[in-house]
Amino acid sequence: MSVSSWVLPLTLTPPSLRDNTADADRLAAALRRRTGGAPVALPLELLRELPDALRAADWRVRCALFGDGEGWVATGVFPGEAGASPLGAAVDLGTTRVALRLLELASGRVLAESGFDNPQAAVGPDVLTRIHHAATPAGLEELAVAVRRALHRELSALLAAHGRESRELTHLAVAGNTAMTHLFLGLEPGRMIREPYIPVVNRPGLVAARDVGLSFAPAARVFVFPNIGSYFGGDLIAGILYAGLHRASEPAILIDVGTNAEVVLGTRDWMIGCAGAAGPALEGGMSRVGMTAAPGAIDRVALEPATGRLSFHTIGGLPPRGFCGSGMIDLAACLFRAGMIDARGRFVPAACGGRLTTDGARLVLVPAAASATGEDLSLEQAELDSLLRSKAAMYTILETLCLSVGLRLEDIGTFYVAGSFGCLIDPRSAATIGMLPDLPPERFVPLGNSSLEGATLLLAQPGCLEEIPRIRDRITYLELNVNADFMSRFSAAKFLPHTDAARFPNRPRGGTP
Amino acid sequence: MSVSSWVLPLTLTPPSLRDNTADADRLAAALRRRTGGAPVALPLELLRELPDALRAADWRVRCALFGDGEGWVATGVFPGEAGASPLGAAVDLGTTRVALRLLELASGRVLAESGFDNPQAAVGPDVLTRIHHAATPAGLEELAVAVRRALHRELSALLAAHGRESRELTHLAVAGNTAMTHLFLGLEPGRMIREPYIPVVNRPGLVAARDVGLSFAPAARVFVFPNIGSYFGGDLIAGILYAGLHRASEPAILIDVGTNAEVVLGTRDWMIGCAGAAGPALEGGMSRVGMTAAPGAIDRVALEPATGRLSFHTIGGLPPRGFCGSGMIDLAACLFRAGMIDARGRFVPAACGGRLTTDGARLVLVPAAASATGEDLSLEQAELDSLLRSKAAMYTILETLCLSVGLRLEDIGTFYVAGSFGCLIDPRSAATIGMLPDLPPERFVPLGNSSLEGATLLLAQPGCLEEIPRIRDRITYLELNVNADFMSRFSAAKFLPHTDAARFPNRPRGGTP
Repeated sequence: MSVSSWVLPLTLTPPSLRDNTADADRLAAALRRRTGGAPVALPLELLRELPDALRAADWRVRCALFGDGEGWVATGVFPGEAGASPLGAAVDLGTTRVALRLLELASGRVLAESGFDNPQAAVGPDVLTRIHHAATPAGLEELAVAVRRALHRELSALLAAHGRESRELTHLAVAGNTAMTHLFLGLEPGRMIREPYIPVVNRPGLVAARDVGLSFAPAARVFVFPNIGSYFGGDLIAGILYAGLHRASEPAILIDVGTNAEVVLGTRDWMIGCAGAAGPALEGGMSRVGMTAAPGAIDRVALEPATGRLSFHTIGGLPPRGFCGSGMIDLAACLFRAGMIDARGRFVPAACGGRLTTDGARLVLVPAAASATGEDLSLEQAELDSLLRSKAAMYTILETLCLSVGLRLEDIGTFYVAGSFGCLIDPRSAATIGMLPDLPPERFVPLGNSSLEGATLLLAQPGCLEEIPRIRDRITYLELNVNADFMSRFSAAKFLPHTDAARFPNRPRGGTP
Repeated sequence: MSVSSWVLPLTLTPPSLRDNTADADRLAAALRRRTGGAPVALPLELLRELPDALRAADWRVRCALFGDGEGWVATGVFPGEAGASPLGAAVDLGTTRVALRLLELASGRVLAESGFDNPQAAVGPDVLTRIHHAATPAGLEELAVAVRRALHRELSALLAAHGRESRELTHLAVAGNTAMTHLFLGLEPGRMIREPYIPVVNRPGLVAARDVGLSFAPAARVFVFPNIGSYFGGDLIAGILYAGLHRASEPAILIDVGTNAEVVLGTRDWMIGCAGAAGPALEGGMSRVGMTAAPGAIDRVALEPATGRLSFHTIGGLPPRGFCGSGMIDLAACLFRAGMIDARGRFVPAACGGRLTTDGARLVLVPAAASATGEDLSLEQAELDSLLRSKAAMYTILETLCLSVGLRLEDIGTFYVAGSFGCLIDPRSAATIGMLPDLPPERFVPLGNSSLEGATLLLAQPGCLEEIPRIRDRITYLELNVNADFMSRFSAAKFLPHTDAARFPNRPRGGTP
């Protein structure tokens, strides 16, 4: 069940006394020939405009078509066999940040990319707080409306900036974790966090854009990526689609580092996935020094070999405001290599020198004079502990997943490393702190925002539609919450790089810049 | 593609850590087993209530399911394996009058029947005026809202009268002529009346009730009967379903006498249909003396053999207000038999006596003192002419249809006579004036409101769903507007009973009471 394009040029035979088929049925019959006989629904909103549209175009039109693998819907009719393409919007619905792209459906060409902080963060930076809030009177509505309005505003601005009309946007593809997806759809997520952790829906399929508060083309539809469970969302399905894990000939792993650490291991024949709370240490929000990958964020930290001094790179070359995820990982790696933190993740006063506050609780990284905030950018011991828990969770998840299918980490050919927070992790830094295994760097492939890329891919290549349910249905989900060995492996992984240092033979030791 | 009931009892396996399928997908899988593997859409409105509904009912529910022959939609979830049945509403969307029934979906039992005058009549009594009005700014919206609001109000009142809640009404089945259907759906009907007479849609299928302004169950769906063309509507498809014409072993005819005369001839193997403007003479509205079949309408007229006097029967035994369709036909037959009108349909002063006004233009039937209006009920020559044009159109349509397939009228085994105006035509009177052929009375089977009956049947017997597209697709439509012989036959049929009186050997002659 696939079509070659989301935009089908159609030349219809005009009606006559001998052929008095209605406009809608005439269009539906032409479309059906393009779907291999599968029926195409024509929403009432489309029918209201159809007669004028067909005649104004002298029966030569392009019809925008969307599907969810179970059915097809016509989402717009545009005059002429050629002309400005109808538009699609790919959306990564992140907990912290929403990223989106506007693209031409006919060519797949991306016109614009943008993003905004998820306004639900006003209720709470983490998923759990929002899920609890959704259970309060009007809380669910408040959260749903917040993100929908912001998305509508952002997309409207992109359209206006490109001189395009709202009614040209017919397709939206939205990928997010299961909780964000539920809040977007206005579905109560409360049972996702209570045993046995059940979402309302796994396969939302296509929903009418206007039913989720988005006014673009009257019959616009939103494809919502399916999830596998409460902790394995559509963002990861989109990521697998983009990474091509489902086509891999040798075992590969997709790692999505966000608020949760979500990992999938597999080949074209099988896939196993799991997810664990990696903590928000990598996504800003919870720690004072953490931030999203925005201008002014430190995204790279280096240790100058000659001087042993730390140097910082910021997005946009601006004065630093904080550290994004990749910056935090680089920072921890540099501090460890410089001997400023020990294998347990404790500050080493002798190595830290004047950077450490007198009470030993806080390491000043950028003095107030050099920061954009006018205050010191510093790292507290508690924040460092949180980061180490995150890295330990990630490593333990990778280890557990491989063990579950009798593989070792070194058997994995490719590690696709996605980060929905928008910056690229340096796999060497990640291996230095024991977050990722110590393997040749070429085995690590950074993907960027794979959720957004997957949503983009669906809009650019309609053939991907039929791969999505196959990906979803092929994944076995490993429930870590009920895995007894997990906690002991997690404890061992909290050290830098690991209690079993022999696992990281190629990484610099602590105190060896 | 059929189900045994619109209400499916389901016992779902509760979710567990080993079976964490989402609520919606759990329900969809159970439903899919009942549809023979066809997917069942779960609207967002249903998903919003689903988690609480399933758990409150301990996973034993009844799911209301509806379909349109191409897909299935779940329209409501109700607790328990037994309990008050979800409800359906069958609606005949008449130009003059809207008739409806409330019924229990599980049993098909009719709870209540009701009706109201189509409020669109405020714009104009006939279809044409309304179609023109729909082309004015806001005219379409005005007409759509008028009938939707009245329908919503009437159904709400019926629900309340039976102590049932709005949310229990999950299914609506609406049959109407093509113009009324378009106005109900908010679709511009303007091209239906201009060559080549093209509707917007032939097969509207299922539409969300809320999309046509009806707030009952949140996910309620409306099945809208398909049409074949601008002049052959869903009301007639529903009528064929009810009459069972599509299952007839010998040729039968379905006649629907309303504003239009719509006729279908066929057997289980083939069907041919046509429609012609019969004029509004039989449906009230246009003539002062005509009215719908409401209390006070004269529905039967008899000629007392002994005295030669006319006697009148009214609906409800009330003082007369006017004549409904069957009363008009009886009246014309009686006047002809009494010699008060001649074969050309002219008043015969000698026979009319004092009933005829001095100018000879008006025949007083009920004097002011006996009428409910306080005015004479009288028939003008122009009104009589209009009636004769209607009867001539009907007979000519029957004749033309039979000729087109090489049959004579006497070859027809059964004439199903439906009248959406709600009163039953006396076939003997109709034959006396040459409206229906002069055949044994047992060949005429009155059906009443076959459109309402057909809509009721669909809700009572889900298996009918798959018959509807088969009926629709099997009918060949004969376009009378382009039939050259039609007008000459029509002229011959304007006489009483016909210029060729030999066709009516068994009917009383004019002037022979």
